[in-house]
Amino acid sequence: MVNLPERIHEANLNALDAMRQANPVWVDVRPALEVLPGMSKNTVLHAGPPIAWEDMCGPQKMGVQQALIYEGLVDDEEAAAAMIRAGEVVLAPCHEYQAVGGMAGITSASSPMVVVRNEQHGNYAYSQLFQGPAGGLQDRDAYNVEARKQWRWLDSVLGPTLAAAVKEVGGLPVKPIIARALEMGDECHNRNSGGSSLILNALVEAMFKTCRDRETLRQSIAYLSWADQFSLCVSMAAAKATTDAAKNIPYSTVVTTMARNGVDFGIKVSGLGEQWFTGPAQRVEGLYFSSDWGDDDVVPDMGDSAIMETYGIGGHVQAAAPALQQFVSGSFSRAVALTREMGQITVGTMDEYRIPNMDFATAPIATDIRKVVQTGVTPVIDTAIAHKKGGVIGAGQTRAPQQCFSEALRAFAAKYRTPGAA
Amino acid sequence: MVNLPERIHEANLNALDAMRQANPVWVDVRPALEVLPGMSKNTVLHAGPPIAWEDMCGPQKMGVQQALIYEGLVDDEEAAAAMIRAGEVVLAPCHEYQAVGGMAGITSASSPMVVVRNEQHGNYAYSQLFQGPAGGLQDRDAYNVEARKQWRWLDSVLGPTLAAAVKEVGGLPVKPIIARALEMGDECHNRNSGGSSLILNALVEAMFKTCRDRETLRQSIAYLSWADQFSLCVSMAAAKATTDAAKNIPYSTVVTTMARNGVDFGIKVSGLGEQWFTGPAQRVEGLYFSSDWGDDDVVPDMGDSAIMETYGIGGHVQAAAPALQQFVSGSFSRAVALTREMGQITVGTMDEYRIPNMDFATAPIATDIRKVVQTGVTPVIDTAIAHKKGGVIGAGQTRAPQQCFSEALRAFAAKYRTPGAA
Repeated sequence: MVNLPERIHEANLNALDAMRQANPVWVDVRPALEVLPGMSKNTVLHAGPPIAWEDMCGPQKMGVQQALIYEGLVDDEEAAAAMIRAGEVVLAPCHEYQAVGGMAGITSASSPMVVVRNEQHGNYAYSQLFQGPAGGLQDRDAYNVEARKQWRWLDSVLGPTLAAAVKEVGGLPVKPIIARALEMGDECHNRNSGGSSLILNALVEAMFKTCRDRETLRQSIAYLSWADQFSLCVSMAAAKATTDAAKNIPYSTVVTTMARNGVDFGIKVSGLGEQWFTGPAQRVEGLYFSSDWGDDDVVPDMGDSAIMETYGIGGHVQAAAPALQQFVSGSFSRAVALTREMGQITVGTMDEYRIPNMDFATAPIATDIRKVVQTGVTPVIDTAIAHKKGGVIGAGQTRAPQQCFSEALRAFAAKYRTPGAA
Repeated sequence: MVNLPERIHEANLNALDAMRQANPVWVDVRPALEVLPGMSKNTVLHAGPPIAWEDMCGPQKMGVQQALIYEGLVDDEEAAAAMIRAGEVVLAPCHEYQAVGGMAGITSASSPMVVVRNEQHGNYAYSQLFQGPAGGLQDRDAYNVEARKQWRWLDSVLGPTLAAAVKEVGGLPVKPIIARALEMGDECHNRNSGGSSLILNALVEAMFKTCRDRETLRQSIAYLSWADQFSLCVSMAAAKATTDAAKNIPYSTVVTTMARNGVDFGIKVSGLGEQWFTGPAQRVEGLYFSSDWGDDDVVPDMGDSAIMETYGIGGHVQAAAPALQQFVSGSFSRAVALTREMGQITVGTMDEYRIPNMDFATAPIATDIRKVVQTGVTPVIDTAIAHKKGGVIGAGQTRAPQQCFSEALRAFAAKYRTPGAA
C-alpha cells in the first residue's frame, strides 16, 4: 500500500504536469452573459472569495452599484443598494463562473470577456477586457459618466474588433506571448509593457483584414498602442484556464486559486476541490502615483490577478522585471532572492518561462501548501493599489497570509488521513 | 599655466557634457540626395573608414554594384564595376556625409534616410530606414530582384508615411525611446524588440491621421509590427547626432566615431578632428542562424552600427539585454562584468540610460583612448554577422582592435605635447 506522502508527491506531479501541459489560446471576446456558465442579467461577479454585500470594501460596493446602473437595472446607486438588499441581485466570485477579474473584479452581463481555451484540456476561462486607467476620483459623478462611456466603447467597439482579429489568426497562443514578455522586462502582473506590445504586433494585420471601418480600426489600434497593461487580462484568463486544469486531483496539495476581495485573501487547493480557505487580505507596500494619497486612503490587497502568482508568474518571476523594484525601494538582488524563495514553496518549474537575467532559470510554478506551512514562506503577490472610493492609485507588493494555507492543510489532513480516503 | 592632463580632463568633461546634453529628435525621412550635404547621383556611401574599391569585402562590393543598378546608372554588376574602375563613382564613408549605415552601409541617392536633429546643438545626422531581413543567398539574381522591390517600397511607401507621422507628432525624441527600451531587455544594438514596439506605439495614431490610403497604412503598420530591429536605424542616427556634438574639442581624448568596413576598424577622436585611425576588423564570435553556415562563410566585423557603442549603448550596456548572451554562450554575470569593464574606459555616465538589473546603474559613455591604452580593455561591440556574398547570417560580439587606439594616442601626443598647441 502506498503511503500518504508518496500519494501526495505523485498527485502534485500530476498537478504540475497539468499546468505545464496546458496550452491556453485566446480564441474570442464575448459578452459575459453569452459565455459564462450560469450568468444572468441580474448577476454581478466580484474578485476574491465569497463576501456578503455588507462586508464588501468601498470599491467593490461602488463597482456592484455601477454595474447595476450600467446594465439598466436601476437608475442610481441608492436604488442599486436597495435592489441588492432586497435579494434581487446574485453576487458571486468571478472564480465560481470560470472567470477572473482584476482589482474589484466587477463583471456583469454585458462585460466583454477575453475567452481563452486550454487546447490541451478543453476547458475555458474568461477575463474582462482591460478597462483602461480609472482617473478623476475627485468628481464621482463625472468619473462614473466617463467610465460608462468607456465601458460602452469596450463592449461595442473594441470587443468585437478584437474578437474578429483573434479568430482571423486562428486563435492567439498565450504561452509564447508570456515567454517573450519575460524577456522584455515584464513579470506579467504589475508590468505588461512587453506583452501588450506583442499582442498589438500579433493582431494588427488581422485587425486590418477584418475591420472595414477606419475609425473603429483607428480607435482599437490606438487603444492597444497606449494601454500598456492590456496584456494582463489575456494572461489572467490564460492563467485561470491553466490552473483550473490542475483542480480536483485527489491527494494534491497544489494551490489552484489565490484571490482577494479587499477584505479576505482566499485560496483553493487541488485535492480539496472548490472549498475556499481564507485569511485577512494584507496591506500592499508600494508607491502611490501622486503625493495626494497615503496609507489611509487605500483598501488592503484586492483582485483575482493573483491568478498570475497561482500560475507561477508575477511575484514568482520578480527577477524578470527589476524595474518594479522601484515600487518597493528594492534591488535586483532582492528580486532574485524572492524568485528563489518562491522556488522553496513550489513543486516544479515551467520550461517555457525563463528569466534571462537569472541565466534563463525556469519559473517556479505550482505552490504546495505543505511547503508554505513548513517554511513559513508565503507567496509574494505583485499588485496594484486601490483607493477606498475606487480607482487605482498605486502599485506594489504584498504577501498571501499564512492563515489560509494552514487552514487548508488542516482540512487536507482531516480529509486524507482517514485510511482509504480520496 | 594649466598642464596637459588637466587640459585633457577638462576637455573630456566638455565632450561628456555635449553627449549628455544632446537631444536627438527624429524629425523626418528624406531621400539621401535631398539631405546629405555633398551627396550626388553618382555617389555611393559605405560603412566604416575609407577603403578603395579593390580592397572592399564581398558584401560591400556587391552592395555598391547593386546601388548603381538600383539608381539606374548601369544595367548589371559588370557595367557597375567598369563604371567604378573608370573613376565615375564617388565612393566614400557614410560618416563623411553625416550618415551612418548598418552592415555594408550602402547608401545611394534615393536611399530613404531617417533624419535626426540634435535639438541641443542644432546638428543633423542620418541613417537609412531598416531594410528588413535579407534572405535567399542561394539565388543571387532572385535575391537582388526581391531586394530592389523592397527598396522601392521603402523609398516610395514607408519613407513618406513615416515622414508624415513623425512631423505630425512634432518630432519623436529618441532618448526616451532608448531609455524605455533598456527597461525592456534591449541593449539597442543587437536587440531592438522593445524599442521597435515603442516606435510603433508612438507613431500609430499619427499614421492614421496623416495617411489616407488604407493599403499604404496597412503595409506600413504591418512592417513596423514585425520588423523588430527597426528602431536600430533611428537609434543609430540619434547616436551619430550625439557623438558629432562631441567632436573637435581641443585636447579631448574622447572617441567620437567607431566604424568598420569588414576589413578595417576605424575610430575618430574629438581632439583630433576628422582623422581616421584604423586597425584590423576582428572576427565576430556568435551564432549563425542556420547550421548551413560556418566561420569560413563570413566577413570580419562590419558596419557603422558601432556608433551605438561610441554613444555608450549596445555592448556597453550588455547587462540590460541578458537574452543576447545566448549568442555567445555567456551568462548574466558575464554581461554585468562587460558593462563594468566598459566603465573602466569611459569618462562618465548617462543619467537617462539605466540598467534595471544592475539596480539602475547608469550607462558608461564617452570612451577615452588613454584609458583603452592604459588598461588594454577595448570596447566590446555587439553586432550582426555578414556572409561573404552578402546577407546577415548570424549575430554575436567582438572587440575593437587595440591598434587604432594606440595610433590615435601617438597622434594625440604629437599634436598636443608641443607647448601652446591646440
